Amino acid sequence: MTTGSRREILAGLGAGMVLTGLAARAATAPTRKIGYAIVGLGSYATRQIMPNFAGCDHARLVALVSGTPAKLDQYGADYGIPKTHRYSYAQFDRIRDNPDIDVVYVVLPNSLHAEYSIRAAQAGKHVMCEKPMAVSVAECQAMIAACKKAGTKLMIGYRSRFEPYNRLAIDLARSAHVGPTQIITADHGFPIRPDQWRLDRPLSGGGSMMDIGIYSLNAARYLTGEEPVAVSAVESTDKSDPRFRTVEDKINFLLRFPSGIVANCVSSYSSSHNGYRVSGTQGWIDMEPATSYSGQMMTIRKDGVTAPRTLPATGKTQFAGQLDHMAECIISGATPIVAGEEGLADLRIIEAIYRSAAEGRGVRIGA
Amino acid sequence: MTTGSRREILAGLGAGMVLTGLAARAATAPTRKIGYAIVGLGSYATRQIMPNFAGCDHARLVALVSGTPAKLDQYGADYGIPKTHRYSYAQFDRIRDNPDIDVVYVVLPNSLHAEYSIRAAQAGKHVMCEKPMAVSVAECQAMIAACKKAGTKLMIGYRSRFEPYNRLAIDLARSAHVGPTQIITADHGFPIRPDQWRLDRPLSGGGSMMDIGIYSLNAARYLTGEEPVAVSAVESTDKSDPRFRTVEDKINFLLRFPSGIVANCVSSYSSSHNGYRVSGTQGWIDMEPATSYSGQMMTIRKDGVTAPRTLPATGKTQFAGQLDHMAECIISGATPIVAGEEGLADLRIIEAIYRSAAEGRGVRIGA
Repeated sequence: MTTGSRREILAGLGAGMVLTGLAARAATAPTRKIGYAIVGLGSYATRQIMPNFAGCDHARLVALVSGTPAKLDQYGADYGIPKTHRYSYAQFDRIRDNPDIDVVYVVLPNSLHAEYSIRAAQAGKHVMCEKPMAVSVAECQAMIAACKKAGTKLMIGYRSRFEPYNRLAIDLARSAHVGPTQIITADHGFPIRPDQWRLDRPLSGGGSMMDIGIYSLNAARYLTGEEPVAVSAVESTDKSDPRFRTVEDKINFLLRFPSGIVANCVSSYSSSHNGYRVSGTQGWIDMEPATSYSGQMMTIRKDGVTAPRTLPATGKTQFAGQLDHMAECIISGATPIVAGEEGLADLRIIEAIYRSAAEGRGVRIGA
Repeated sequence: MTTGSRREILAGLGAGMVLTGLAARAATAPTRKIGYAIVGLGSYATRQIMPNFAGCDHARLVALVSGTPAKLDQYGADYGIPKTHRYSYAQFDRIRDNPDIDVVYVVLPNSLHAEYSIRAAQAGKHVMCEKPMAVSVAECQAMIAACKKAGTKLMIGYRSRFEPYNRLAIDLARSAHVGPTQIITADHGFPIRPDQWRLDRPLSGGGSMMDIGIYSLNAARYLTGEEPVAVSAVESTDKSDPRFRTVEDKINFLLRFPSGIVANCVSSYSSSHNGYRVSGTQGWIDMEPATSYSGQMMTIRKDGVTAPRTLPATGKTQFAGQLDHMAECIISGATPIVAGEEGLADLRIIEAIYRSAAEGRGVRIGA
């Protein structure tokens, strides 16, 4: 991002363009940037998402919601958000009256996703929600229903779908570049530090699976383009570790897909993993790191030859790509490629993974 | 191997040293090389094992057993094995009367391992048997009992235990070089060509699991030094593929170990895999290829730094190391590090893997 482009955005924010009604917005010329309110000013929102509006073509940051007045002051000042566009949680529903806000981006702890997404929809706003979409299938369904009823769009923050190497991996895997896919291995994990909301089940809804493990699961789904029909999972948690009093540490799982592909997935809060490999009949496509904020590395082995595969550097980050995609969908009327149904599909499988691990049996999904 | 060292061996073979009785052999000076009979002259025996006697300090090839007279002629001539030391299967039991033969190395299709190992023991010979040890736990137990009764040693051909990088990986993993192990991933597979005995259940006893998959399983066990307590497996076989009429293609499995380590394992007859990774709390030890005939490559990530780890080239291959180990055990009276109990342990788990896949449930092992 250049200083120039950032200045331009900030100048744009000051212009205070006001439009009323979704239909009017959809009909707006593409030069009109879609306004986002960020709900929850944790490190992911402030360090990863917010700086990336500067690289967006169609999205801009217009409002902030936080329970911490100092954060509202700090980030409000940093991003030129006027005090009229800064909200406490008690004031959240007033977003309804702010026409600058087109999208509410929920970056709260998992168990608050459903509530704030639904309230955003009820306020007439489009909803972007971080993954996992919610802590249960029932909540996901309620979110989808609320957005449908309100006529607003719902998108889940699966940023890897806007990352060039992951897009290439999807294309290569689904086009059988190394032959029809047979096996996918997808491993994600990190040694979690104590004292995080992610380790508090009432906020997180679960352990590694509800955090880093969803990358393994979602990758298996997007690399195949299929929905698994069965899952077998094994959990391993040291309950004497004070970090894991209420949530699981390691939970690994096998997914069987209709075409016969099997995915072996790792989810861990005790070790570092960030990679996947698509193995076909003629070779494999390896990504490591695969779903990091940046620095993806792809290696392809085909017909006995192993070589790195590099893409030209692109101007837009996965974060900006994600923010722009929702904006473009709002402008064009299209459905996001990672709509609420995508988040629901993951949660359906996550519930099956937990059930499989708890009951020590394979669980069939769907049908 | 040098031409010189090979000539030396072949000269030694002609010397026709004769000793009687196991006790007399055990008391022999270490310069006396232990004589092997190879049973089954397939490609693994003829291309991998037999050329490696040239690099052995304590083992020599003294006899051949095959059902194909042309092979006996060819390899007999190549290795200077006199006609008196070449046997058909009908003549197999006559090995009893050949004092040059100390060890019978069974390199037959899996379902013949038990029969020929037991007959070798009954002929008073030590037994080396390829992996999988047999096609059932019951057969493994019968083999162990037969060798015990005969007072002969029994060793299973787990060659990776004599490969320097695998030995280093074991040392590093068990000494928590990258922190206590949390997750092991172990992947083995290759696209199998049709028309092999390995695809014929009466000979193989199973598909990829009874062949390449055992490397994933055995690695998980030797890298942890633990025995798994539970397994969950998922099979995926295209029964319309003529290769898989009687045996499984892909069968992937999760193992849970007493310390909490979880292993995610791949076994495939449709895609190429040869690697494992030991992930601890501070990094990982990666091997790829891991269990190939040669060319092992190790990479270690520790405290955020990733680097290859290389060992000085050693004179002895894993094949020669394995042959010499059995010879040394015979000379010293020690028990092989991969005795029959090691093969039995794998078969016990393989049976649980098959049961888990067939019944769609986790299976507890032992106790």
